[in-house]
Amino acid sequence: MQNVAMQPLSQNQTAVVLLSGGLDSATVLAIAQNQGYTCHALAFDYGQRHRHELDACARIADALGAASHRVFELDIGQFGGSALTSSDIAVPKDRDESSMDDIPVTYVPARNLVFLSIALGYAETLGASNLFIGVNAIDYSGYPDCRPEFIESFTRTANLATKLGVDGNAIKVHTPLIVMTKAQIISKGTDLGVNYAMTHSCYDPDETGGACGRCDSCALRRNGFIEAGIEDPTRYSTAHS
Amino acid sequence: MQNVAMQPLSQNQTAVVLLSGGLDSATVLAIAQNQGYTCHALAFDYGQRHRHELDACARIADALGAASHRVFELDIGQFGGSALTSSDIAVPKDRDESSMDDIPVTYVPARNLVFLSIALGYAETLGASNLFIGVNAIDYSGYPDCRPEFIESFTRTANLATKLGVDGNAIKVHTPLIVMTKAQIISKGTDLGVNYAMTHSCYDPDETGGACGRCDSCALRRNGFIEAGIEDPTRYSTAHS
Repeated sequence: MQNVAMQPLSQNQTAVVLLSGGLDSATVLAIAQNQGYTCHALAFDYGQRHRHELDACARIADALGAASHRVFELDIGQFGGSALTSSDIAVPKDRDESSMDDIPVTYVPARNLVFLSIALGYAETLGASNLFIGVNAIDYSGYPDCRPEFIESFTRTANLATKLGVDGNAIKVHTPLIVMTKAQIISKGTDLGVNYAMTHSCYDPDETGGACGRCDSCALRRNGFIEAGIEDPTRYSTAHS
Repeated sequence: MQNVAMQPLSQNQTAVVLLSGGLDSATVLAIAQNQGYTCHALAFDYGQRHRHELDACARIADALGAASHRVFELDIGQFGGSALTSSDIAVPKDRDESSMDDIPVTYVPARNLVFLSIALGYAETLGASNLFIGVNAIDYSGYPDCRPEFIESFTRTANLATKLGVDGNAIKVHTPLIVMTKAQIISKGTDLGVNYAMTHSCYDPDETGGACGRCDSCALRRNGFIEAGIEDPTRYSTAHS
């Protein structure tokens, strides 16, 4: 038994993996599966303006072999305040990169905090001590709840909030993408067999799910494929691009 | 302008006050109103086994003069795991005080974390930098997410998660009851004019809302009125007590 890293008894190899239907979270699920975790995928129906993301979540969870997949209904949009959930606020297009440091109108108030909190409650009912989330502090859109210091603080809070945590700081929040560029994420996922044609990133797709190619999310994704030197399988809307 | 304590610009006197319909949160609302905050009451419909709590929230918000009152629908019970939301788990009765240090089956996984996170998102859409919650570390039922260290950690996380927080650690989580006994809470609320007949604490009421008098919550409440020397206005079920 020498030279074997001992894991606290209260930790385990069961994980809740947050899925958004996008490129990042699909890659996170592939990484978690590859690391040997038993992965329970969790998606949120939070009053998004379109349903293509949820369809993508189900396809991805199935294709990558998640142990289960659930959709949590949460009408976070009932308070308004974001272009991602309110039809009164337009999704910005063709922003130049210098303005991406600002917090954009597509920001949903406290979204990652709410999603992680619910994922934690779900993890506790499963006895899972691992959460995986695809936040990224490099090629991100300026949301405050994507930063490493937020994740660290949430982890501490999570361990104080729950039975599992009380039993010995067992809860870990894994952010395997946090310091990767979009191109690196795409390369990693491609190595692990992710079919990115299944994923959906666009904030403002057409009725068939075709990507607009011009919102922040499309711009980051498109440039990522170019930088990675990997063919972009995204189906762009002919009306937009 | 001398001798006036300067408040950071990003702080304000607008608050979101979490209401549960019980004695504690009604007292918190009375305290926040008395301190001059403009209070927006927020209750959760989270798949409780009974609706008397939500009826009580509406009565309390109205009686104490809250600026608004909203109910957020959140089916946290869909994951199971607690006697408060699952009809498969019985509410414990007549527990002796020595066992109240254990985490009971009425614990809802990560409930306060989830509620505070959603309240924070709501606060951000209102531009409110204050949250009020009636957690209590003295006469509590052994839930980990009622402890001061949890609240402190959540506050730090909240400031890292949001636009308001990014602008200067503006978000404050107020826990005016945290070191008060149940008797002190009842005395304080009585001084501030709270009508406790409007509040509902019981985990297992009869069909008319009559309190069982025997669950942890009833036991704490009943003893509180006795210790405070204030007449208990609770309507107890004749079938139970």
